Amino acid sequence: MKEYEIITSTSNSKIKETSKLQQKKYRTQSGLFLLEGYKPIAEAAAANIKIQNVYTTEKFLAKFEQISALKNKITVVSPVVLEKLSTTDSMPEAVAVAQQNNFKLRDIQNAKRIVLLENIKDAGNLGTLIRSACAFSIDAVLLCGDTVDIYNPKVVRSTVGALFKLPVIKTSLQDVKEMFPASVFIATVVNHKNITEPEDIDYKKPFVLMLGAEADGLSNKAIELSDIKTTITISTKTESLNLSTAGSILFYISTR
Amino acid sequence: MKEYEIITSTSNSKIKETSKLQQKKYRTQSGLFLLEGYKPIAEAAAANIKIQNVYTTEKFLAKFEQISALKNKITVVSPVVLEKLSTTDSMPEAVAVAQQNNFKLRDIQNAKRIVLLENIKDAGNLGTLIRSACAFSIDAVLLCGDTVDIYNPKVVRSTVGALFKLPVIKTSLQDVKEMFPASVFIATVVNHKNITEPEDIDYKKPFVLMLGAEADGLSNKAIELSDIKTTITISTKTESLNLSTAGSILFYISTR
Repeated sequence: MKEYEIITSTSNSKIKETSKLQQKKYRTQSGLFLLEGYKPIAEAAAANIKIQNVYTTEKFLAKFEQISALKNKITVVSPVVLEKLSTTDSMPEAVAVAQQNNFKLRDIQNAKRIVLLENIKDAGNLGTLIRSACAFSIDAVLLCGDTVDIYNPKVVRSTVGALFKLPVIKTSLQDVKEMFPASVFIATVVNHKNITEPEDIDYKKPFVLMLGAEADGLSNKAIELSDIKTTITISTKTESLNLSTAGSILFYISTR
Repeated sequence: MKEYEIITSTSNSKIKETSKLQQKKYRTQSGLFLLEGYKPIAEAAAANIKIQNVYTTEKFLAKFEQISALKNKITVVSPVVLEKLSTTDSMPEAVAVAQQNNFKLRDIQNAKRIVLLENIKDAGNLGTLIRSACAFSIDAVLLCGDTVDIYNPKVVRSTVGALFKLPVIKTSLQDVKEMFPASVFIATVVNHKNITEPEDIDYKKPFVLMLGAEADGLSNKAIELSDIKTTITISTKTESLNLSTAGSILFYISTR
């Protein structure tokens, strides 16, 4: 049986380096991100995400030793140290350091069902949209403009593993339009003329379904390059749906 | 022009009493709750929610003086005091104390389109479900079991005003069954036999659509008293949808 040294100091240099990954700046510099909890770590390992290191406590060690992809990658720490690495209120069973995926647009040339998200600010919304996109067989999620970092721990949590199951790519409107000239660009709008009901769109043709920011919706540029404008009809009693709700309903409709 | 005294001390007894409403215990004892920000306060006033007091700073005073329902109910405080009353990271323009609605089941006897939520733990999910229910013309939302408090500030925020536009009632499965004997009880389940596709249900008949807890789904008791079991078909790549997403898609389908 393997023997482990236990890191008990939060000022240990490895621990200090790792906890920096809670900040976007260090994630971008290093190309690494944090996974928290057994399930996200196990799912990432199963999806061949490269995991560099798993920090866990003696209590949960045996559980992680059973995942063969994590062999020789486990570091045992005290609960206090694990708490420092974690971004959640309740301490996870482990925190892992993993390598970011680095998909490019050319990797998804054959994608037929694409979702494009512009200027999404809320981590929970972005994570939930990726989760629903995966559930309704979207081939890829593209992020344009000023969107929250997909490797933000809250986004990673909200995707519930979906982040590892489809390509999520940071790009620009112009590059998407050039890469997919034959796709139908669908803009999700409110209070617009010339609306096509989402149920009347032919989702058998390749499409790029575009959703905009929580408060402001899509930019004019995105709306201008669209072929179709759509919106979900709701009761006049309410102003709007939550963004991830609206997106998920459209993804659902596209499968019917 | 009315003159105001300005409360500048966070240990002022009124301020201390009011900030206690951030806790469920005090909300339940008093039948009061907090509203944060201009829009929620204006919408609650427009929906005839009784507002007892509005705490705002000099900067935003004029804005709230224009709402006639708030006449003689405004207290001016310093930004530090407003911050103490607020539960959000960024300070709202005002915090108001309002009276909880106290609907009973008998008040909604004629409701045809009912949503029943059991053991919902996440404030964001509950708020989003209420928002979507309102958007898709649900007549009432019923809460059973151990559900997060609807007057929790995060729930109030996530409903984006919908909380004031339809009855939300705490009750029990048994009471609902007795009050609506002619309604079709629809249980949302996963991995069950005898599933009816949600698109195949006749939503013109009165229904009670039941959704269960994030992790565990509906209780056996709820499933047993259902007439129909349904589920949203998703890609085999994913395990589940977010609860508020799944609910919202079902509410959408019920309007089609």
